[in-house]
Formats: sequence, C-alpha cells, structure tokens
Amino acid sequence: MGRVYNFSAGPAVLPEEVLRQCANDMMDYKGTGMSVMEMSHRTKMFEDILGRAEADLRELMGIPSNYKVFFVQGGGFQQFAAVPMNLTVNGVADYIDTGNWSNKALKEARKYTDVHVIASSEDKTYTYIPDVSDLSVDENADYVYICQNNTIFGTKYKELPNTKGKTLVADVSSMFLSEPMDVEKYGVIYAGVQKNAGPAGLVAVIVREDLLRDDLPAYVPTMLKWKTQADAGSLYNTPNCWAIYVCGLVFDWIKRTGGLEAMKERNEKKAKVLYDFLDESSMFKGMVVKEYRSLMNIPFVTGDKELDALFCKEADAAGLVNVKGHRVVGGMRASLYNAMPIEGAQRLVEFMKEFERTH
Amino acid sequence: MGRVYNFSAGPAVLPEEVLRQCANDMMDYKGTGMSVMEMSHRTKMFEDILGRAEADLRELMGIPSNYKVFFVQGGGFQQFAAVPMNLTVNGVADYIDTGNWSNKALKEARKYTDVHVIASSEDKTYTYIPDVSDLSVDENADYVYICQNNTIFGTKYKELPNTKGKTLVADVSSMFLSEPMDVEKYGVIYAGVQKNAGPAGLVAVIVREDLLRDDLPAYVPTMLKWKTQADAGSLYNTPNCWAIYVCGLVFDWIKRTGGLEAMKERNEKKAKVLYDFLDESSMFKGMVVKEYRSLMNIPFVTGDKELDALFCKEADAAGLVNVKGHRVVGGMRASLYNAMPIEGAQRLVEFMKEFERTH
Repeated sequence: MGRVYNFSAGPAVLPEEVLRQCANDMMDYKGTGMSVMEMSHRTKMFEDILGRAEADLRELMGIPSNYKVFFVQGGGFQQFAAVPMNLTVNGVADYIDTGNWSNKALKEARKYTDVHVIASSEDKTYTYIPDVSDLSVDENADYVYICQNNTIFGTKYKELPNTKGKTLVADVSSMFLSEPMDVEKYGVIYAGVQKNAGPAGLVAVIVREDLLRDDLPAYVPTMLKWKTQADAGSLYNTPNCWAIYVCGLVFDWIKRTGGLEAMKERNEKKAKVLYDFLDESSMFKGMVVKEYRSLMNIPFVTGDKELDALFCKEADAAGLVNVKGHRVVGGMRASLYNAMPIEGAQRLVEFMKEFERTH
Repeated sequence: MGRVYNFSAGPAVLPEEVLRQCANDMMDYKGTGMSVMEMSHRTKMFEDILGRAEADLRELMGIPSNYKVFFVQGGGFQQFAAVPMNLTVNGVADYIDTGNWSNKALKEARKYTDVHVIASSEDKTYTYIPDVSDLSVDENADYVYICQNNTIFGTKYKELPNTKGKTLVADVSSMFLSEPMDVEKYGVIYAGVQKNAGPAGLVAVIVREDLLRDDLPAYVPTMLKWKTQADAGSLYNTPNCWAIYVCGLVFDWIKRTGGLEAMKERNEKKAKVLYDFLDESSMFKGMVVKEYRSLMNIPFVTGDKELDALFCKEADAAGLVNVKGHRVVGGMRASLYNAMPIEGAQRLVEFMKEFERTH
C-alpha cells in the first residue's frame, strides 16, 4: 500500500520529507556511525540537535528572550498538574471550560488550588467559545487557563480572553505551529508535540522567566518543577531524544516552507475546502458555530449513526483513514494538521460528495 | 563512516537489525500507509504493537500473572517520586545507598516519607555492594529500595537483600533484560529502557497487583499513580508510542536470539574479555571489588588524568566511542549492553593493549 491520507487527531501525519530523513539517518546520523536513538544526551552531537530545535522554535514563534523554552515528558496531562504546582501563590485559579481537555485540566488542578470556572460552553455541548471579553476574573487569581484549540469539539478562540492583568496559561497542543501567535500575551504556553510537530512523548513548554519559582510546595516532584527543567535546558535527566530530533526536523521543514504565516495561509485554504462543502452538503453537517471553527480539527456528522460508521469504513478502504470522531462526540472528524497536503482535504471532499450521491 | 562500537552508558547501542527494521517501516508500517509515529494510540494497529511488546516482555522475564506491566514517561527520576507516592502507608522506607542513582532516589523520596539508609557503600566511593544478608530493616518499613546495577560505579548485587518480609523495590535500568531475574522476589521492578531495550523516554514498570492502591495522598498527580496507569494498560494518555514500538522490536530480537539465559551467557563472555585484561594490565585498572562487578558497565582508569583523556580521544578516533567515564568517577567506562557484539569488547581490548604498548 502507498501512503494514505491520515486524518488522525494525534499522533498524526508528519511531513514525508521528515520521515524520509529519519529513515536515511537511522544507521548513521551525519557520519557519527550511530542512530540518534543510540546517542548519549550528554554528547555534543545531541546537544547540537537540541540547541538547533530550540533555536528554530524560538525563531518560528518569535519567542522573546525573557521566555524559557524546554521539552519535557508526560504529555499534556502531566502539565495539568504542573501548571497549578508551579503557579499557585494565592490559591485561586480561573479556568475557562471549552471541552474535554480544559475540563480534565481543571479537575487535576483542583488537587492543588481553588478552581473557579469563569466561563463555559458546556451548555451547548462545547460547540462554541464563550464571550471572553469581560469575565469575572478573580482578584486573587494566580492565572487564567484556556485550551485554545479544542481537538475533540473542533473549536478555537478567535480572540484571547481579557485576563484583566492576570497571567494567561494556554494549552495549544492541537494548534501548535499552525499559525503565528503573539507569545507576549501569554505567561505560559505548552503543547504536546504529537499533533502538529512530532511523535508522542514530548511537550514543549514556554514560560515567562518571572513565573519560574524555586519555592514550590514540598510535594512537587522534581520532574514537574519548571524551574529545574528550564535551568537544566531540558537535560535534567535523559529527555525523549528521538522526539526532540524529529521535532527539530519538523521545525526546519516549517522554516523552509515559509514559516508560520505560510502555514496559516495553507491551513486556511485546506480547512476552507472542507468547511465550504459542509456548508452546502445536505448529508454532512459541521457542529461548530462558524466563527469559532478550528483550522485543525473538523468534526462532522450525517445525523445517522449507522451511516457515520459506514462512511468511516468506506473512507478507510479508500485510503482516507482515521476519520472516526472522538468517542465523546461520535460521527467523524478530519484533522488537517500542517503536514496534511491540500490534496488530502480535496480527496476527502470528493469522497464525501460521492458518498452523498450514492447513499 | 561505518557503524562504530558505541560504549555509551545510555542512551546506548541498539541491535542493527532493529534499526534496519525501523528504517524499513518508516514510510509504511506493515501496509498501513503510515509511520508508527503517525498512528493514533487508540487504533487497533498500535494496540497490537503495545500488546505484543507487553506479552513478549512477560514471556522473556517470566512475569507472573499477578504482576501488572505498564510503560510510562518521565524516566527513572520520575519513579524516584512515584515509588514513595504509591507505596507509603506507614511513612518509613529503607534505602540501600550504592551510588549516584540510589542516592538521588532516596533524596527525592524524603519529600514523601521518612527515609532510613540501612546500608551504604559510600565509605569506599561505592566500589562494592554492602553485605545485605542481615540488615536492620525497619519494622514499619513500607519497602526496601535498591538500585541493582550501578551504571556509574560499575557494581551489581550478587544477591538480593534479605528484606525480612518487606517489599523489595528495584531500579534495574542498566541491567534490564541482560540476564534472568526472579520477578517474584520483588514487589516493584522498574527500568528506564534507554540502556538496554530502546530509545530514551520510556520506563517499564512491573508491580505486584496487591501494591496498586487507589487511596493515595491528594497531591499525587494522576500521571504518577501506578494504579491509574496499570488499569489503563499504558493508555491513560498518549504514551511514547515510538519507544514502545522500538522496545517491542528489541524484545522480539532477544527472544529470537535465545532469551535471557542466552543474553546472560553472551554478556558474561563479553565482560570477561575486558575484565581479564584489566586484571593483567599494568596500565589500566578496574575500580570495583571483583565479586560485585557489573556485567554491563565497566569503569576503569590509568591513574593519570591526562593519559585517560588521551585514551578517550584516540579510542574515539578509532571508532570505539563514548568510553569517557561519568563526571562523578572520571577515567573511562565501557558499557557492554546486550546489543554490543563481543567483537566490540575484543576490539576495545586490542586497542587498550596497543595503547599500553605505545604510551
């Protein structure tokens, strides 16, 4: 079988060029006589890989020098605990609940701080983003937390919340590097890389320096303390070296293909192919309020569960794989990450049209 | 450059056959049209990879059915916190200090429990393993902790401690799968896989079922709770899928080349090549008391720091790489993990002989 169009929400499609490089480097990375997987993380060759990855990420996102960047393990879920562990001073945190992941984050945070849910779109099964222009931000809030792109429900903030001076913390996993971001508006940004930048098992964390503290509660495990990880430059213990290497190749690929402005333009074109069809189709419907539609994750349904299942099965057989929706939402979902070529979106829409005609 | 002999202590050499398979599978894993890095962890194809890896590990180590096996992120260091978080009931734990890693483990444990160091080899810079046949095990000890093979100092327990009925917890990272183990003698075994089984970023944890508890202190992050990880079969959140896949290939390679008995025999032969030379050389000396010598990590010195540095440099140029000792010990260290062929040990000894003759 040739390569398929893989619409998985994550782990997800990677650029073919990056995969080819991984295969080429496998037995002998740049004349070292070994694979990147076999390299001590304390060697110059690995430090070069890590240093270049960080530098490229800084360049791509325009990360100011007063922000630290580090790569850790444990997934977004581990950051759900790390966020309150590292930021709690007053003992209150404000969360905006826009779906599954912000909800899991706030539940984990309740172990460590008082959580106030200051806005939620649960009332309409998370199909929109609440108005965040004038929220009741707590006077003592240590931070305001958002999940900026909601992988499962397919929504994205069109503007950032007015935090009234409080630190903004954002999980940007499923929109990481899909468009430019103004890093200075955030105190903390983190992203599991397995959606848009690399293989699973690595989180990129970006923290404004003044938020890195030494005086954390005694129960905080060393591995979850951001200052320790930042001070050690991702090398406090052995990191996920392979994932850092692959991310570095992806960062380089993004740079060479035009950076985040170009990514955004391509991603808008790709998403438009599918959204335009959803708007005109009589069989397939998107569920999200238009202005909050995600560029990356597009859920849709036929309204008939059996038909949904048949569609997924037939799409799969046609090489359009992993279009099954998340179990929480059902139906279908197409994730159109950076590495998905526009031909993938076009082929999917052609297939949907044909399916609509014949069923 | 061709492949080198890589004596790194970890991340470390992997079987060439495994690397070749990784390269071959890169663009299209078994006709799926995608790389393992691009696969959702919730798909049947990845569940097969995970299921086979666990089954092969169970078969290789003879893990009884009342033990759970799961794969987590964060390295051994994260387990240094997870061990006391998951096992503390009475609030006392006994540690045996045999070097850098047991020492870091006990320091992290002090955040969560009273730590009693019931034996130590610090008095002779960790060049031996203390007598562990009749220790003052605390009546209330929740567990007795050891690091069974000491990567930096090159020692290994020749027999397990008499824990007087208490639960034995062992970090076996640098001897993982290098020889058979009697799993039933342990309550908990864990290993960072990056030394003898795969790439960095994954820890294999083996826990006797009755030690998996739900009633942990409120501050324990979900990701560090063993029961959560065990119940979810390593899929509570997105695991390090790539590392699980590579480990699976290594487990399969070990099975096909004779299992752990065969590994032990080969490892003993390999280590003997180097130890025999160290015993007769007038320039190079091992530092470890003979009966506690590790099969995996062999530190040695010339006694002259400049000569040590010259040796490392010339060895490197000769394709015998990463023989520099850990900064804590200095000198040299040759790690002879499963994937190091005996020719590597032989070539190293020939090179040492030549170096001794000419310097």
